[in-house]
Amino acid sequence: MDKWLDSVYSDGTGEFVSSPAPRMGETVQVRLRVLDGAPVKRVFLRSLHNGLQSFTEMERRKALHGLRYYEAPLPINEPRVEYCFCIAATDATYYYTQMGITGYVPDHICNFALLSDYVQPEWVRDTVFYQIFPERFCNGDPSNDVTTGEYYVGGCPALHREWDDQVLDYQQGRCMDFYGGDLEGVRLKLPYLKKLGVTALYLNPIFAGPSVHKYDCVDYFHVDPHFGGDDALAELTRDAHEQGIRVVLDISINHTGSNHLWFNKDGVFFPKTVGAYNNPESPERSFYYFNEDGSYHGWYGNAHMPTLNYTSQKLRDAVYRAQDSVLRKWLKPPYNIDGWRFDVADTFGRHDSIQLAHTLWPEIRRAIREENPQAYILAEDWGDCAQYLQGTEWDSTMNYFGCARVIREFLGQRDLFLHPLLRSEKKMTGEDVKARVMQHLAKLPWVIRENQFNLIDSHDVPRLHNDPAIDSRARKAAAIFQFILPGAASIYYGDEADIGGTVDSNEGCRWPMPWDKEIEETEGYRLYHAMCSLKAAHRALREGGMKFIFAKGPVFAIARFTLEEAFVAVLSNSDREETAELPLCEIGARMPENGADVFGNTVGFTPVSTGAVLTLPPHAALLFNCPMV
Amino acid sequence: MDKWLDSVYSDGTGEFVSSPAPRMGETVQVRLRVLDGAPVKRVFLRSLHNGLQSFTEMERRKALHGLRYYEAPLPINEPRVEYCFCIAATDATYYYTQMGITGYVPDHICNFALLSDYVQPEWVRDTVFYQIFPERFCNGDPSNDVTTGEYYVGGCPALHREWDDQVLDYQQGRCMDFYGGDLEGVRLKLPYLKKLGVTALYLNPIFAGPSVHKYDCVDYFHVDPHFGGDDALAELTRDAHEQGIRVVLDISINHTGSNHLWFNKDGVFFPKTVGAYNNPESPERSFYYFNEDGSYHGWYGNAHMPTLNYTSQKLRDAVYRAQDSVLRKWLKPPYNIDGWRFDVADTFGRHDSIQLAHTLWPEIRRAIREENPQAYILAEDWGDCAQYLQGTEWDSTMNYFGCARVIREFLGQRDLFLHPLLRSEKKMTGEDVKARVMQHLAKLPWVIRENQFNLIDSHDVPRLHNDPAIDSRARKAAAIFQFILPGAASIYYGDEADIGGTVDSNEGCRWPMPWDKEIEETEGYRLYHAMCSLKAAHRALREGGMKFIFAKGPVFAIARFTLEEAFVAVLSNSDREETAELPLCEIGARMPENGADVFGNTVGFTPVSTGAVLTLPPHAALLFNCPMV
Repeated sequence: MDKWLDSVYSDGTGEFVSSPAPRMGETVQVRLRVLDGAPVKRVFLRSLHNGLQSFTEMERRKALHGLRYYEAPLPINEPRVEYCFCIAATDATYYYTQMGITGYVPDHICNFALLSDYVQPEWVRDTVFYQIFPERFCNGDPSNDVTTGEYYVGGCPALHREWDDQVLDYQQGRCMDFYGGDLEGVRLKLPYLKKLGVTALYLNPIFAGPSVHKYDCVDYFHVDPHFGGDDALAELTRDAHEQGIRVVLDISINHTGSNHLWFNKDGVFFPKTVGAYNNPESPERSFYYFNEDGSYHGWYGNAHMPTLNYTSQKLRDAVYRAQDSVLRKWLKPPYNIDGWRFDVADTFGRHDSIQLAHTLWPEIRRAIREENPQAYILAEDWGDCAQYLQGTEWDSTMNYFGCARVIREFLGQRDLFLHPLLRSEKKMTGEDVKARVMQHLAKLPWVIRENQFNLIDSHDVPRLHNDPAIDSRARKAAAIFQFILPGAASIYYGDEADIGGTVDSNEGCRWPMPWDKEIEETEGYRLYHAMCSLKAAHRALREGGMKFIFAKGPVFAIARFTLEEAFVAVLSNSDREETAELPLCEIGARMPENGADVFGNTVGFTPVSTGAVLTLPPHAALLFNCPMV
Repeated sequence: MDKWLDSVYSDGTGEFVSSPAPRMGETVQVRLRVLDGAPVKRVFLRSLHNGLQSFTEMERRKALHGLRYYEAPLPINEPRVEYCFCIAATDATYYYTQMGITGYVPDHICNFALLSDYVQPEWVRDTVFYQIFPERFCNGDPSNDVTTGEYYVGGCPALHREWDDQVLDYQQGRCMDFYGGDLEGVRLKLPYLKKLGVTALYLNPIFAGPSVHKYDCVDYFHVDPHFGGDDALAELTRDAHEQGIRVVLDISINHTGSNHLWFNKDGVFFPKTVGAYNNPESPERSFYYFNEDGSYHGWYGNAHMPTLNYTSQKLRDAVYRAQDSVLRKWLKPPYNIDGWRFDVADTFGRHDSIQLAHTLWPEIRRAIREENPQAYILAEDWGDCAQYLQGTEWDSTMNYFGCARVIREFLGQRDLFLHPLLRSEKKMTGEDVKARVMQHLAKLPWVIRENQFNLIDSHDVPRLHNDPAIDSRARKAAAIFQFILPGAASIYYGDEADIGGTVDSNEGCRWPMPWDKEIEETEGYRLYHAMCSLKAAHRALREGGMKFIFAKGPVFAIARFTLEEAFVAVLSNSDREETAELPLCEIGARMPENGADVFGNTVGFTPVSTGAVLTLPPHAALLFNCPMV
């Protein structure tokens, strides 16, 4: 394939569509660019309207930074208008979709798409999230601490621990060891977080529940008293909003705990006279999947987490439809949360012959957006989930699939979401990173890409920097990767403090925050503070286009750019020196003259007509701010 | 990528899944094969159930024809169960989906899928269709011919023509020149069709309409009297069924003619007191898109074909819901048709803010299948339409996208569905044929692939053999291609008779059938008769797996195979001699010892360890029946 074809580019940013979130009836100007002087005869915009294709020849416009622009109008006649580009070159006809160039008429699955009924939560693309596991972040009010033996669940006693206890002896499933973290603690640390550069919080579950993690909720309508109760949340969101920090809460509406008010199997927190388990005639009986013999379906076969049955219209009312429903309550004053993160959303509403996912999510979306049109809908799904990301269901997933899993594998960590016997020692190649990420992103409209929640660590995966098998330079590469992708970046609490932990269990990534450290002196703090500052300072890192400009063996490079500035991330997983030829001409940019990246690291490079050939040190993790040509 | 990876194979045929169309609750055995001796440590079946992934290690089973089989059980718990394969090799982990091998976790879009609520019209995969444009096929009853001046439409008179009139003077849009073809003519030719090897007819529209093509229908409830009326259809289907030939009818429920009983704009065929156009209070007014000023929406802006508006529940009743609705009437006795071909299905039910396609098609499907569970649902869509082909809407499209358009471009014809300025002289390459076809098929469950209506010519495209720009050997390549793809093949009437015609308009491919020829002596007849006979005689060409085993520059090769036999098609678009290395080991086969194909053409070849290197003559169109090793 000719080199000039690699320079063909368009996207859904304001620089390539005049209205990225158009209204029905609007006509949008769509632009494409290609290296000036390329052997292009004509360019056509091919759009689909009511299923019928339409060709519009694009007008040749001015060139800028060595790139020639073409433009054509696109009428927005329906909720989703798809398009691609057809390029008549001197030798052949080429087609350009979100997946790149083909020499044949491409599938529609990777068409560009503009959504005319989609309200984008625009704040997300500017955001750095900070994920907090509340029980382990900060004890702001010791008076509400759990005391040892205060209650028992499944024979396991609640156990009070001191904040600086060693947690190295944690076992999988020890989720009754309480350190005292609470919402007042989070509130007290807002200045710390603001200084770090955080602009939104994602809190793991805070509703009443016996465990540390609280995915075994007993009451969706109340914040756990050990976290400070409902008032503590109202105070937290009020103060956070005053400081320009948004708050997203976590919930599992796929299942409740078996001690939930609605189910109440053991009668631990509520009298046995209420709840579905002991009372077949109770109104909540229809909320669950009971068999005739009184047994019931639990999430992943887990009897402690009975699955909710959304064939029940009453349940839909209780969870999201009624004005006083769970999801609506916390979006309203005085709580005013900014979005929901849905636990195990991948399996929600699905139970063999009952497949309600694509019925329920649009309903849930409408309910949430009625309360707050800018509320974020973040879903847990570790796999391919492009079907949910088309503007009518989720705004984003926890982006393991297109971010964490990919960069971890590139950096040499074995994929945690595979069967252990399938984990390979082989590192992912640059070509495979590009293919994996682009095959995912190419199925998403651009406005949806800008919503993605790009993470590396979370409460469910070992912290990368604590993995002894991974090169110590890897965390920087990972941070650069998550910040250069379109969307929000998420820092998992403590990563910026070089927090300790083990990699053998979920408990190993939930250690108490090491407040006794000089956190601002840590490697982690400097890295994340720098990345937050860059994102805040540069529009290209918030609203810019994005393109892989190099991918070969152990190296790949991603550019983010506007018409005014460009960033290029260059990452290597090699133990040796490597070279990379960066075709910076494709983005109208050139290397900084001194070869220095934003962290002050300098590499040797040779300018060539198309850009530069770089000599990369082992495990390079570089981020260049490249001037325009 | 290592060569052995190319040998990894599975599909949805009975040889790789124990139950290709399973019932809910069944457990299916799924198989994979790979070259025996490949460096495979373990193979896992990765399946998705209610959104959650599950890994099952596959048991290593016996080897056959040099290929090692692995097997694992797959529970069918929901309407659609997706799966792929994970292969732990000595060097790395690989993933295998319907799109092939990747070194990274693949998207779900190309997962294998079993549909548990899908009733496959199994007869389709065994079928050779014969498409008839009734007005031009055979005049069986001259007493019902249109007479010159019998009626006028839009100022244009109906014109009686003699069967052997020259039609070279046809102009685009001359659709009022009648030759007298009718259903009695079709009935009389059933023995001819049976001898050719045809097992189903697809008839272009036959319901009352003033034009030759009858897409401007005036009454869905009656067969055009000039075609013999309703009784002629009953007789035709009765006789056809007796001879083992099925009958599929064509209809446009997207729009009616402007003279339709329901619309009746000009009062040509019905009194002006009926119909929506002249009677705003008529019950049919809601069937159409009328504006306040009395203007209305026509298909593609065409005032002669007013678009039907399916927000009208009464219209849904009239077309498919009521027991006496249009679609149901003809599926019932005494007509008993075997399926419907839907004109312009791509745009059906779509009108800007009204997007009903995915609401209406499942309803239509249910209505049709209530009348005849094996009825075929064939839709016109020239583009990518994988979203409709998932078991709940269409069974097939007119497969231009994955068959006609591809092979025509490979053979050097410029794609007719593109803007004229985008048509390139460059022939499609073998690599691009493989990519185009597999990207389409990989999104379809196997049972759906077996329904595809693979065509080369139709009433809407110039006949390939009449295109002076195309090498005369191309038609054979095209026929081999359409017959080797999974699904039915369709012969457009007259192609088997070397029928004349022009390539400048639709009229040019609708010439009267040349019954005065010695048809059975023509090149076309010998070609299609041979292909029909092969399909009838060999299970591999009806129910076999399918795989591209070679694709490079001007050559590609496709195999169809069972465990007992294999066919390999080798096609070249080159003016020169070419070589092709066929890795026949991947299908457990070898070259016939004399190098002769099923037509008796012999090529030179050199056996190699993996198969054979062939020396191909220019424009090779070869079909080998390869013995197993």
